Amino acid sequence: MNATISTPTDREIRIERVFNAPRDRVWKAFTDPAMVAQWWGRGNKLVIERMEVERGGHWRYVEHGPDGVHGFEGRYREVKPPERLVLTFEWDGMPGYVAVETATFEDLGDGRTKVVNTSLFHTTAERDGMLRSGMEQGLNESYAALDRLLARLG
Amino acid sequence: MNATISTPTDREIRIERVFNAPRDRVWKAFTDPAMVAQWWGRGNKLVIERMEVERGGHWRYVEHGPDGVHGFEGRYREVKPPERLVLTFEWDGMPGYVAVETATFEDLGDGRTKVVNTSLFHTTAERDGMLRSGMEQGLNESYAALDRLLARLG
Repeated sequence: MNATISTPTDREIRIERVFNAPRDRVWKAFTDPAMVAQWWGRGNKLVIERMEVERGGHWRYVEHGPDGVHGFEGRYREVKPPERLVLTFEWDGMPGYVAVETATFEDLGDGRTKVVNTSLFHTTAERDGMLRSGMEQGLNESYAALDRLLARLG
Repeated sequence: MNATISTPTDREIRIERVFNAPRDRVWKAFTDPAMVAQWWGRGNKLVIERMEVERGGHWRYVEHGPDGVHGFEGRYREVKPPERLVLTFEWDGMPGYVAVETATFEDLGDGRTKVVNTSLFHTTAERDGMLRSGMEQGLNESYAALDRLLARLG
């Protein structure tokens, strides 16, 4: 099952994906460092250097993949369990290019949860650079790893 | 002498100011921590916790003013001495709201330097919030302190 990706405006990317697990479990998988370490890196070693899940807190992940070491970081703007998470996102490879990610977690009432993640960029060029970066494949690999984690937790 | 402030687009603030000092000295005043500590805080104590002036480096200043303690931070996107500096800017009071600041330093050829600082926000509301924050007064106080520092260095 692939995520549905769209571009609602010229500076946004919207990603929609349904997970076969209740909302509290999906929320935990996104906000508990021990959980994130098991899926975000798609099987690559992920070092969570910092993850302060509260308004104003910082996060920083370092992924050790076959093509090298990649750092990612940002800061939490809004944390409203179990339904809404807003944070900034920046990749070390393009420092100072910051997107704002808003994730909403919707209880579908049948034991499943819909996650909608909308990223807002400063410019259309930055948004298009992200679309061309292989983001979609990486995302689907991450979410497949998350499916497996949620099934193990079930 | 006040800075000239304008809004070239609906998500930008442009600030123009001429300093009575050669470009190398103005560049140093913006990029050397010992110099920044003497003007950025407008007379308030300024603790420079981090200031790695290179692409990808981080900065973090904490200002101790009569109305409390305020942290500011960001990351350098581009450092091209002595003419161009691009960095992100975020205030702890609104974490996750990130502007990109592009500063250019123009040698006017008569011993003076023109600094143009353009800030790009994710939304017009964020830009307007910054305009209403008392930014203009604070900025003019900072630049007046910088005038005095540059004169002492001359």
